[in-house]
Amino acid sequence: MKELKDRIQRDGQILGNGILKVDSFVNHQVDARLMDECGKEFARRFAKLGATKVLTAEISGIAPALTTALHLGLPVVYARKTKPITMPDQVYLTLAPSHTKGRTVELIVSPEYLANGENVLIIDDFLASGATILGLVRLAEAAGAKVVGIGALIEKIFEGGREALKPLGVPVESLACIASMDGGKIVFQ
Amino acid sequence: MKELKDRIQRDGQILGNGILKVDSFVNHQVDARLMDECGKEFARRFAKLGATKVLTAEISGIAPALTTALHLGLPVVYARKTKPITMPDQVYLTLAPSHTKGRTVELIVSPEYLANGENVLIIDDFLASGATILGLVRLAEAAGAKVVGIGALIEKIFEGGREALKPLGVPVESLACIASMDGGKIVFQ
Repeated sequence: MKELKDRIQRDGQILGNGILKVDSFVNHQVDARLMDECGKEFARRFAKLGATKVLTAEISGIAPALTTALHLGLPVVYARKTKPITMPDQVYLTLAPSHTKGRTVELIVSPEYLANGENVLIIDDFLASGATILGLVRLAEAAGAKVVGIGALIEKIFEGGREALKPLGVPVESLACIASMDGGKIVFQ
Repeated sequence: MKELKDRIQRDGQILGNGILKVDSFVNHQVDARLMDECGKEFARRFAKLGATKVLTAEISGIAPALTTALHLGLPVVYARKTKPITMPDQVYLTLAPSHTKGRTVELIVSPEYLANGENVLIIDDFLASGATILGLVRLAEAAGAKVVGIGALIEKIFEGGREALKPLGVPVESLACIASMDGGKIVFQ
């Protein structure tokens, strides 16, 4: 998606250690209009999958997942990283290593909102190693739901996430696919 | 806003201790279309304030703040509760007691995205005691920005937040104003 790529090229910052900072339009400050365009594009690409729910992980997955859900006319569920007091005792919980946090985080979904037989479209901000998305896949499977597609705003193909997701046999779409960040230069595929 | 009130009446659950659970459409599962309608309504009510940025707190403020920002054509900044590695060392940080978490949380904004002279519209999911929103006000003031309006999806007027915000002298709008939850019954003002 050209608009997203242009924005990454203009405002993204390579911090080293494979970290791409996009805090000015995705992760801390959000460009609402751009996020809406990205949601529209995901909705277009995943229109024919028969998804019944969009699933993401808090925090930075919420914005693109919400706009995608809006354009598909679906509800969105975001997996929590800490269990709020409003959640029942019995939950779906999995662990996922977080590259940017340097530790393992919990991903928790209430059985109230992820049901047997649902068709789940997973949307997240980044596809890097695929660890977070595979965590969401495990939550969906634990609920008896079927993952029908996976979308990420930004893919870092050199971190191998796409390979890790391949065995699922579902469409994986990213709107900006980064082939390399070597030498402080962002190169799209 | 009738649609939101109807939904709260139908799907909201009173858990005791003043907690209203709206996890099926606001806090864990999000009704994207309803959230978009709420954003549209906030945008209508705050259209003439000259806001330059929407400010909220992660996690549950993100959805209504994003849709409001979308309809106002503004960026949205969400205050983080933990400092990500992409954030500079020098930040705006304040502490706010969280009723639902039973402890004090940090609210952190990077100076990169909240500047002197900005007109800030604060949007959050709940207005209860006003503690989180007052934390956001302190962050805006620390940055030299001016708060021009405050909006919440759901106000629990019996928790006194509106009184706490009064000294700010800015418009405070809530889309569903709950006067009482006594006896397990939600009564709107």
